[in-house]
Amino acid sequence: MKKAVLFSEIKFDDKGLIPAVVQDSDSKQVLMVAWMDQDALQQTMKTGEAHFWSRSRNTLWHKGDTSGNIMYVEDILVDCDADTLLLKVKPAGPACHTGENSCFYRNLELKNA
Amino acid sequence: MKKAVLFSEIKFDDKGLIPAVVQDSDSKQVLMVAWMDQDALQQTMKTGEAHFWSRSRNTLWHKGDTSGNIMYVEDILVDCDADTLLLKVKPAGPACHTGENSCFYRNLELKNA
Repeated sequence: MKKAVLFSEIKFDDKGLIPAVVQDSDSKQVLMVAWMDQDALQQTMKTGEAHFWSRSRNTLWHKGDTSGNIMYVEDILVDCDADTLLLKVKPAGPACHTGENSCFYRNLELKNA
Repeated sequence: MKKAVLFSEIKFDDKGLIPAVVQDSDSKQVLMVAWMDQDALQQTMKTGEAHFWSRSRNTLWHKGDTSGNIMYVEDILVDCDADTLLLKVKPAGPACHTGENSCFYRNLELKNA
């Protein structure tokens, strides 16, 4: 019953980017958050493999290109404002460059607010 | 076995904000993504209820203040770069202002990349 959103409706920010939350479609673990420009999103849609915009390297980033840890995209969801994406993926390996399954492997220390 | 991250280690962006992914701690559904400034994060840590920075209204936003749909925060995780947060919450009601459970209730139309 989900309504479809067109590519042209996606709102990229003033840097031409949109944040993409990546969630494991099986375990439902949130794996990482990365950024996409129009090209990264189009490459992801065309290939079915997650592509991002690397803000540190200023280039298209095909996740897994060097590590082998490709993320196979099963679904792309869009939020109510059309300014954030949610990718449901099957990852070929750990999402994090540290080797952890998810980039969210640390807690915030809650005592020092 | 999770390592703790200190508040002082959190990296806010050039606008003083950090994106926060909100996930239902029971269903593991990703509910929304919102932004926090230092104050919103501190208020969240102190009260245990999710506070954000409203970019449209330019003000502190206590989620549920008007709708009643408070989000009770059970855990705050930090990603490997310390520039994104993941909040595990128990929501008192729908996360989305549309009445949908999650703001991610629409698919991206995949045919027109």
